[in-house]
Amino acid sequence: IAYIAITGGAGFVGSHLTDKLMMDGHEVTVVDNFFTGRKRNVEHWIGHENFELINHDVVEPLYIEDQIYHLASPASPPNYMYNPIKTLKTNTIGTLNMLLAKRVGARLLLASTSEVYGVHPQNEDYWGHVNPIGPRACYDEGKRVAETMCYAYMKQEGVEVRVARIFNTFGSRMHMNDGRVVSNFILQALQGEPLTVYGTGSQTRAFQYVDLVNGLVLLMNSNISSPVNLGNPEEHTILEFARLIKSLVVSRSQIQFLPEAQDDPQRRRPDIRKAKMMLGWEPVQVPLEEGLNKTIQYFSRELEHQA
Amino acid sequence: IAYIAITGGAGFVGSHLTDKLMMDGHEVTVVDNFFTGRKRNVEHWIGHENFELINHDVVEPLYIEDQIYHLASPASPPNYMYNPIKTLKTNTIGTLNMLLAKRVGARLLLASTSEVYGVHPQNEDYWGHVNPIGPRACYDEGKRVAETMCYAYMKQEGVEVRVARIFNTFGSRMHMNDGRVVSNFILQALQGEPLTVYGTGSQTRAFQYVDLVNGLVLLMNSNISSPVNLGNPEEHTILEFARLIKSLVVSRSQIQFLPEAQDDPQRRRPDIRKAKMMLGWEPVQVPLEEGLNKTIQYFSRELEHQA
Ligand SMILES: NC(=O)c1ccc[n+]([C@@H]2O[C@H](COP(=O)([O-])OP(=O)(O)OC[C@H]3O[C@@H](n4cnc5c(N)ncnc54)[C@H](O)[C@@H]3O)[C@@H](O)[C@H]2O)c1
Ligand SMILES: NC(=O)c1ccc[n+]([C@@H]2O[C@H](COP(=O)([O-])OP(=O)(O)OC[C@H]3O[C@@H](n4cnc5c(N)ncnc54)[C@H](O)[C@@H]3O)[C@@H](O)[C@H]2O)c1
Ligand SMILES: O=c1ccn([C@@H]2O[C@H](COP(=O)(O)OP(=O)(O)O)[C@@H](O)[C@H]2O)c(=O)[nH]1
Ligand SMILES: O=c1ccn([C@@H]2O[C@H](COP(=O)(O)OP(=O)(O)O)[C@@H](O)[C@H]2O)c(=O)[nH]1
Ligand SMILES: O=c1ccn([C@@H]2O[C@H](COP(=O)(O)OP(=O)(O)O)[C@@H](O)[C@H]2O)c(=O)[nH]1
Ligand SMILES: O=c1ccn([C@@H]2O[C@H](COP(=O)(O)OP(=O)(O)O)[C@@H](O)[C@H]2O)c(=O)[nH]1
Repeated sequence: IAYIAITGGAGFVGSHLTDKLMMDGHEVTVVDNFFTGRKRNVEHWIGHENFELINHDVVEPLYIEDQIYHLASPASPPNYMYNPIKTLKTNTIGTLNMLLAKRVGARLLLASTSEVYGVHPQNEDYWGHVNPIGPRACYDEGKRVAETMCYAYMKQEGVEVRVARIFNTFGSRMHMNDGRVVSNFILQALQGEPLTVYGTGSQTRAFQYVDLVNGLVLLMNSNISSPVNLGNPEEHTILEFARLIKSLVVSRSQIQFLPEAQDDPQRRRPDIRKAKMMLGWEPVQVPLEEGLNKTIQYFSRELEHQA
Repeated sequence: IAYIAITGGAGFVGSHLTDKLMMDGHEVTVVDNFFTGRKRNVEHWIGHENFELINHDVVEPLYIEDQIYHLASPASPPNYMYNPIKTLKTNTIGTLNMLLAKRVGARLLLASTSEVYGVHPQNEDYWGHVNPIGPRACYDEGKRVAETMCYAYMKQEGVEVRVARIFNTFGSRMHMNDGRVVSNFILQALQGEPLTVYGTGSQTRAFQYVDLVNGLVLLMNSNISSPVNLGNPEEHTILEFARLIKSLVVSRSQIQFLPEAQDDPQRRRPDIRKAKMMLGWEPVQVPLEEGLNKTIQYFSRELEHQA
C-alpha cells in the first residue's frame, strides 16, 4: 500500500486512475481545482477511509504522499485555449510546485503528451517539431518544459520521475463540453446533430481506451525514468472515425465539414515498442469498437439524466 | 524620454544596452541578481540622476516602467547548466513576473535566442527542433516557453511584446569565466594556453559584435510584435575562429581538441532578411576583426588589472 496523490484526479483520465488505485488498496488523495474535472467523477469513493478529495490549484504549493500522478492540466484544445496564460501557469508553476516532491521524497509521474512531438509516428528519442508561438503552444510548450523540469529535478535533486507521453484517449467521464473529437462525435450522433469534421477529415489520430491507466500504474512502479509513449498504434482518419461512430450509434446524423483548425497536426500515431518491451504493456484489453460502445452507453445515460 | 527597465542589465549584453539607452537620455533601471553580472559593468552610471541599479531576482515580482528589456537569464552553457532548475525558474517564473507589465501598461522585449531553432539557417517562421530533455533543455525550452508566455499575454491581456531571437554575440564585459567560445579563445590566446576546441571544430557559428544592442532598441521601438532574428550571417567553423583569434592576438598557443559537447548544434547562422526589411538593421557597423580586436584589448586590460 502506497500513499498516492493524483493531481487532476477528478478529470477524465484521473478519475479512472483513481478507480484502479483505490481498487488496488492504496491511499489516494485527489487534488483538483475542478476546472474541467467534476466531483461526480469520483464521488463513489467519498467516505471511503482510503480516499481524500482536495480542492486545490496546483499553481499553489502542496506537500504530500509517496507517489504523485501529476495530471492537472486542461487537456482538450478548447479548454487549454480558453485561458492560455492559466494553462502555461498550470504546466510551469504547477509542475515546479509538484516537484517539491523532493521535500518528501515522493516519486512523480508526469502526464505528458504526444503533442511534444508534433510530427508522427516517432519513438521516444525524437526531439519534436512544434510551433512555439501558435495557438496550441500554451499546451505543447507547457508540457515540453514540464518534462525539462522533471529531468532537471531528477538530475539535480534526485527526485524520482516518470514521464508518460500519452496519446489520444477516450472513455466514460469525458466532460460533455470537453470538445475533443470522440465526445463531440458521440454526442452529435446521439442527438441527431451533424458530426463536425474540421478540415477534410483526412488527418489521422490513433485512439486508445482509457484502460491506458494500467500503463500509467505500470510505468510509475517500473524503474524506467526516461519518457515512454502510451497509446494505441491503430491509426484512422477523422472521417473514418466519424463514419464508425455514426454506424455504432446507428445515427442518421449528417457529416458536416468545417474549416480546418490552425496548426492541426496532420498525422498522429504512437510507436509503442518501448512500452511493450520495458513495461510489458499493450492497449489490447479493450478493442476500439468495444471501447466506443462503452463510451456511447455512458454518454447516452448522461443525456437521459440531463433530460 | 522613456522609463526603461533592463533585467540582466549588469551582464554582458545588458550593460552595453544600458550605455546606449543612458546616452540616448532615458531613465534606466537595471534589475539584476548578479549571478553572472557585475556592478563594475555599469558602475560608470552610478550617481547619474537618470540611473538606478536594483539587486533583484526576477523570480520575485516587480512592478515598474514604460519599457522592460527582459534579458535576465544565464546565457552561456556552463552558466545555465550550473543550476538547471534555477535557469528554468528564471525563464518561466521570471518571465511571468515581468509580464505583469500588464499592470502598468509597459512594453516588454524578451531577449530570446537562436537556440529556439536548433537547426540552421532558418527564418522566423521555422518551428524548431530541439531536445526537450537534454543538457541544453533548461535554456532552450525555457526560452521557447518564455516566448509562448509573451504571446499568450499579448493576445489575452493586450501586453505589448517584442521578441528578439539573438544569435551568438561577443564584445567587452563578457565575464572572464563566461565559458563561451570567444572569451575562452581570447583569454587562452592572451595567456599562451592551448585554445580548447570541442569536437573537430567543424561545427559553425556566426558571431556578431555587441552593437547588436542597436537592433534591440530599434525592435523595441518598432511596431513588429512577431519574433525577429538579430545576428551576423557571416558563418565560420569554430576551428577557423580559433585560428583567426590566434593570429589577431599574435599568440603561440596550440590548438587542443577536446571531446565534443553533448547535443552541440552543428551549424548556426541567422537569416536576417526580416530585420533588414522591417527594422532597417544590419550588423555592419563593426566588422568581425575590428570587434575581435576591441574585445582582445578589453581582455588584455582585464588580465593586467588582475596581475
Ligand atoms: N485524454 C487524452 O487524450 C490525453 C492525451 C495526452 C495527455 N493527456 C494528459 O492527461 C491529463 C489528464 O487529461 P484528461 O483527458 O483527463 O483531461 P481532463 O480535462 O478531464 O482532466 C484534467 C483535470 O485537471 C484538473 N486541473 C486543471 N488545471 C488544474 C489546476 N491548475 N490545479 C488542479 N487541477 C487542475 C481539471 O479540473 C481536471 O479534473 C492531462 O495532463 C493531459 O494533458 C491526456
Ligand atoms: N550573448 C549572446 O550570444 C546571446 C545570444 C542569445 C541570447 N542571449 C540572451 O541575452 C541575454 C543576456 O545575455 P548575456 O550574454 O549578456 O549574458 P550574461 O550572463 O552576461 O547576462 C545575464 C544577466 O542576467 C542576470 N541574471 C541571471 N539570472 C537572473 C535572475 N534570476 N534575476 C535577475 N538577474 C538575473 C545575470 O546576473 C547577468 O547580469 C540573456 O537572456 C541571453 O539568453 C545572449
Ligand atoms: O485550471 C484553470 C482554472 C481556471 N481557469 C479559468 O481562468 C480564469 C482565471 O482563473 P484564476 O483566477 O484561477 O487564474 P489566474 O489567471 O488569475 O492565475 C477563470 O476564468 C477560470 O475559469 C482556467 O482556465 N484553468
Ligand atoms: O468536433 C471535432 C473535434 C475535433 N476534430 C478533429 O479531430 C482531431 C483530434 O482533435 P482533438 O481535439 O480530439 O485532439 P487533438 O488530437 O487535436 O489534441 C483533430 O484533427 C481535430 O481537428 C474534428 O474534426 N471535429
Ligand atoms: O540566477 C541565478 C542565481 C543563483 N544561482 C545559483 O543557484 C543556487 C541557488 O540559488 P537560489 O537560492 O537563488 O535559487 P533556488 O534554486 O532556491 O530558487 C546558488 O548556488 C546560486 O549560485 C543560479 O544558478 N542562477
Ligand atoms: O572553449 C570552447 C567553448 C566553446 N566551444 C564550441 O564553440 C561553439 C560555441 O559555443 P558557445 O559556448 O560559445 O555557445 P553556443 O553557441 O553553443 O550556445 C560550440 O560548438 C562549442 O562546442 C569550443 O570549441 N571551445
